[in-house]
Amino acid sequence: MTTSRDHSLRVLLDPQSIAIIGASDNPDKIGGRPIRYLSQFGYRGRILPINPHRNETQNLRSYPDLDALPEVPEVAIIAVAGDAAVKAVAECAEKGVRAAVVMSSGFGETNDVDSRNKELAMVAAARAHGMRVVGPNSQGLANFGNGAILSFSTMFLETTPADGPVGIIGQSGAMSVVPYGLLRQRGIGVRYTHATGNDADVTTLELAAAVAEDPALKVLLLYLEGIPDPEHLEEAARIAARRNLPVIALKSGRTPAGQRAARSHTGALANEDRVVDAFFERCGIWRARDVQDMVHAVELHLKGWRPKGRRLVAISNSGAVCVLTADAASMAGMPLATLSEETRKDLGQILPSFATTANPVDITAALLTNSGLFSEILPVIARDPAADAFLIGVPVAGKGYDVDAFARDAAAFARETGKPLVTAIPQPGVAARFLAHGLSVYPTESEAIAALNQYLSHVERMQAARPRLLAEAEQPRVRGNHGAAEYSATERLLNEADSLALGTRFGIRCAPYRLCRTPEDAVQALRELDGPVAVKGCSADIAHKSELGIVRLGVSTEGEVRAAFAEIERRIAEADAQFDGVIVARMFKGRHEFLIGAHIDPVFGPVVVVGDGGKYVEALPDTQLLLPPFTADDVRLALSRLRIAPLFDGVRGEPPLDIPALVDAVLAVGGMMASREANVVSADFNPVIVGAAGQGVAAVDALITVRDGQASRN
Amino acid sequence: MTTSRDHSLRVLLDPQSIAIIGASDNPDKIGGRPIRYLSQFGYRGRILPINPHRNETQNLRSYPDLDALPEVPEVAIIAVAGDAAVKAVAECAEKGVRAAVVMSSGFGETNDVDSRNKELAMVAAARAHGMRVVGPNSQGLANFGNGAILSFSTMFLETTPADGPVGIIGQSGAMSVVPYGLLRQRGIGVRYTHATGNDADVTTLELAAAVAEDPALKVLLLYLEGIPDPEHLEEAARIAARRNLPVIALKSGRTPAGQRAARSHTGALANEDRVVDAFFERCGIWRARDVQDMVHAVELHLKGWRPKGRRLVAISNSGAVCVLTADAASMAGMPLATLSEETRKDLGQILPSFATTANPVDITAALLTNSGLFSEILPVIARDPAADAFLIGVPVAGKGYDVDAFARDAAAFARETGKPLVTAIPQPGVAARFLAHGLSVYPTESEAIAALNQYLSHVERMQAARPRLLAEAEQPRVRGNHGAAEYSATERLLNEADSLALGTRFGIRCAPYRLCRTPEDAVQALRELDGPVAVKGCSADIAHKSELGIVRLGVSTEGEVRAAFAEIERRIAEADAQFDGVIVARMFKGRHEFLIGAHIDPVFGPVVVVGDGGKYVEALPDTQLLLPPFTADDVRLALSRLRIAPLFDGVRGEPPLDIPALVDAVLAVGGMMASREANVVSADFNPVIVGAAGQGVAAVDALITVRDGQASRN
Repeated sequence: MTTSRDHSLRVLLDPQSIAIIGASDNPDKIGGRPIRYLSQFGYRGRILPINPHRNETQNLRSYPDLDALPEVPEVAIIAVAGDAAVKAVAECAEKGVRAAVVMSSGFGETNDVDSRNKELAMVAAARAHGMRVVGPNSQGLANFGNGAILSFSTMFLETTPADGPVGIIGQSGAMSVVPYGLLRQRGIGVRYTHATGNDADVTTLELAAAVAEDPALKVLLLYLEGIPDPEHLEEAARIAARRNLPVIALKSGRTPAGQRAARSHTGALANEDRVVDAFFERCGIWRARDVQDMVHAVELHLKGWRPKGRRLVAISNSGAVCVLTADAASMAGMPLATLSEETRKDLGQILPSFATTANPVDITAALLTNSGLFSEILPVIARDPAADAFLIGVPVAGKGYDVDAFARDAAAFARETGKPLVTAIPQPGVAARFLAHGLSVYPTESEAIAALNQYLSHVERMQAARPRLLAEAEQPRVRGNHGAAEYSATERLLNEADSLALGTRFGIRCAPYRLCRTPEDAVQALRELDGPVAVKGCSADIAHKSELGIVRLGVSTEGEVRAAFAEIERRIAEADAQFDGVIVARMFKGRHEFLIGAHIDPVFGPVVVVGDGGKYVEALPDTQLLLPPFTADDVRLALSRLRIAPLFDGVRGEPPLDIPALVDAVLAVGGMMASREANVVSADFNPVIVGAAGQGVAAVDALITVRDGQASRN
Repeated sequence: MTTSRDHSLRVLLDPQSIAIIGASDNPDKIGGRPIRYLSQFGYRGRILPINPHRNETQNLRSYPDLDALPEVPEVAIIAVAGDAAVKAVAECAEKGVRAAVVMSSGFGETNDVDSRNKELAMVAAARAHGMRVVGPNSQGLANFGNGAILSFSTMFLETTPADGPVGIIGQSGAMSVVPYGLLRQRGIGVRYTHATGNDADVTTLELAAAVAEDPALKVLLLYLEGIPDPEHLEEAARIAARRNLPVIALKSGRTPAGQRAARSHTGALANEDRVVDAFFERCGIWRARDVQDMVHAVELHLKGWRPKGRRLVAISNSGAVCVLTADAASMAGMPLATLSEETRKDLGQILPSFATTANPVDITAALLTNSGLFSEILPVIARDPAADAFLIGVPVAGKGYDVDAFARDAAAFARETGKPLVTAIPQPGVAARFLAHGLSVYPTESEAIAALNQYLSHVERMQAARPRLLAEAEQPRVRGNHGAAEYSATERLLNEADSLALGTRFGIRCAPYRLCRTPEDAVQALRELDGPVAVKGCSADIAHKSELGIVRLGVSTEGEVRAAFAEIERRIAEADAQFDGVIVARMFKGRHEFLIGAHIDPVFGPVVVVGDGGKYVEALPDTQLLLPPFTADDVRLALSRLRIAPLFDGVRGEPPLDIPALVDAVLAVGGMMASREANVVSADFNPVIVGAAGQGVAAVDALITVRDGQASRN
């Protein structure tokens, strides 16, 4: 696990000395602000401003050039423009500077070839001497743990920093500091706010892996527009898994419009969005839908809870909040816990008769006249083991209420139970008092439930992903080495017989069949297969058989077989396609048609797709994705998310489906895709007919494309 | 349209004099707070405290009892407990008080029969004299337009009221003031904050209809846990439609857990949630999913925009915000407008070369060095007619930026274009300055897009509903008079032949058929129908034929028909069911099976359901609801929302479906359900086979239940 990254990037996080090339005496210029921040936020290393025109910069001794420095700085900030930046990078590299943060813009982010070439030259010069480069066009890195603020962001002037357990990394300047601002508004400390810019050398995800190793970090936030280097994200995920570090990523470019915008912003190539979803899940990473989603559960992860389940108990002084919470929790898949009879009896002795002792517990407006109700019921509820998590809703309080006592009691209750607890408090004044007691406060119950649900779901996802990630730390998964760019690209469609044969080799069941070259072979096959058969034309030139009319089903007599053979051979000849023979296959009588497909994603490698089969797979898609290698549990989970999942156990008197056999088939396709020897580029088993429980499955059509030649890198 | 409501409820909104029975000198007691509020918030009528123990209450002359008052008060607040409250209501009614607001609790909201009976007695006493009662268990009514604050809510102490164009009405005290608080936090004035309590007499919705007539009102918010009286909501909707008043309703009890909680909170009976959705849409009412949703688009409705479409232009100084906005807008069905070549050329002359002149317009961080960029590009964008709405995102600003100029320029741009504009600004300091210039500010782009999308969608919904609502003002729709409680309830299942015949009478097409009593009839039918035919047992005792095995398809010979007849007759006899004959029906060859169903909702009246047919209608439902009467446009819209809608135009070389014929069939079912003469309680046409375009449809099975007897009220 020691890589050059470890060494070179750690310098960026904890530099002993920092030169600023293009240092400015004006603390609001790009070349001035890092000096200001380094001084202001407690950096203890050496600050070495470089400016040929000054001896002193912001009260620090400054130097005319690199040669004049008393030492070789570990890191240099480059804040000069254009060619001067390229030159500065080259000089730093030659002098032995370990890493540079290039803030200068006008390079790869433009449409200008010349500017793009300058960026390439800059990186080449650095690499020649083993120097790493962040940027160009980087807002910079900020580490409030040691004051190493190599950033010119305005945000740290606007919202006071405080070191804390959160790291934020992205290419975008804005999206590294917006979550910072939102978290700081909630009183949460942030250690890292890194904006890497063009990622010409060091990438966001490479830096993420380095940051993930900081033992002080408790939550890692990522903003991504593209994922060109998933191996770094996997590495970060493995490091995070070892440490139980939650990683929350906002990956934009979900839609074609967003992808176009991302392309002009960071040049990000579009990732297939569902593959990103599957990849994140596999890595235990939560995918935030938006910026709020990125930050709103962070504080819950910081509490150190160990949630055991999703059953909620809700408590409020408003019946309406009870109703709204019950709705929100139900819709989030958080069932309301059933309180024990004893709990309800005890509550009944405390609460007025018109209050509700069932869950949600409605204290009613009686709280106004008896503030003690709250402190009396909480211990009763704490004793009941039914709850996994709590919501306390206080929609209205203020004059006449002992708000501080509520907050104190709620905090004591949270400590006593040690279980996840969120509060929903719309009044800012009341919210402030609950916050002061260390509680997590959201304005409304729906926001509180959304955050709690995200937190619980993320913990579940982390737990599910952890064993695999830890195992893969030993042996990273097969992935991008199947990628298109790495092969001498001769792709070849296999005919159905070869496709079925290849599938069979990897354990994908199909109905017994014979490839017949002559009508006599076909008649013989009909006899051997004993029963009505399907007769299908076989040609590597034909991807879509039914459109050519070369499939005959339910053929049961010798005459029919001969007629079918002749007709199919004629049609294939008319289509000017190669005739590889006719497949005679036993009809498989099943219950439901599925599809199993697979392809090589250019970034993420093999992807297996499983879903509802039949005629309308494109028009009415119902599919789930899996990234090999995966387990039977993964396949079962994916299948359970299909729209058609309610059919698995049998409905309307139908028998249950043979889902175990389907799971085996999906695993077999996963194995085939992970095999370098098979060299499969894409596979489409459709339909895969699934029989009643115990009857197995049969792939009754298959279409595989392989890539010929050796797996040689271009 | 003049109802007793009009008269009696207006007194509650604008009382000339108010007696407070149970007046307290302590302004924080329930009987004291209304007096405090009436004095504090500018009420100009007479305040008449009643307390047998005092001559003066909160510096006002007070009276020992009703008789001692110098006048008969228009309205009385009842703030005494239990029996005293019942007595006070009776006395008020006898004296000629026009309406009472009963704050006392411990009545119908309890599980206690005695307490519930007291509530009934209270209302009966009031009704005997034509007095209206709000409550009991009401937090009260508040009208900040005239200072008539008949409420004891704590909230008006916590968050300063300001009269404004918003009304909020609900049974719940908390949910009438929580939206108040959230709106006031955003600087929006609220006129009405009404919490009606147990709705024993005056209901939330009746009051909503009265409030909707206030010409100063620009948005009406409702919190509902049940809708027992949809006629009042329809009346409110009609009044709102006349005035183009947006109505936003948060109806909780969406889930079984929420419904249970609502039942113990307000005693609300569960409404079928999808029917509520359909009813709201029909009424032009926006259904908020949660409290945030209830308030976040209010300010957009107050701007007086007249939106023409959904094409968005986004502008930001952050490329990441551009990407996130493009994603959010796309997912909300708001396409990014295509800027003209001229606009892009003009933008290109202003913006730096690495900025993006396409939409989203990325000004880039160059804004930091040139604050003028913003003011220069806005007029260019304003000239382009492509945009229907705008989002301006300023994720980071502060020192070095001329934030006030940005806000001023954005406000001028908004005025100039007159088009909807939202801003996304996470920094509170920057947000405050945009707010100060009258702009709508949300913390993030996703929240801004969500609010804008809700606003635009609601306006579309209002426009779609308006013509019908205005027409129905003349002739209210048929509804609850079909309701179960109103009939002498003898329900009777029709056999298939009678069901098909009844459907046919209302214009529902079915395949030609004959009801045959003898095998000879059946043979004759086969000849006439020019087979193949379906042969089906007919019995009013049998709802599910296929499970009894009394359906034969594809029968084409005389022998087959006779065999089928005999077998079916035998099976029906074995099932101990009445044998009504055998239906011989021509097979209809169609393309896709739909279902059309209908039932009488106990609250909302007839409901028609249309959707995907076939075996799995329960397991994999794909249906849409319609409330009669509805138009062909309504049906087409409902069909377009089905999951299977992509199949309508034909996929994979299939012909398009005969959707116009399906629309006619749905209209026919709607007509049948609206007919009092047919007296249909439920109908199930499944499958309705839809043929290729021009081939029509055929209901090939039907099951109708009718209610016999006259439509006499119990």
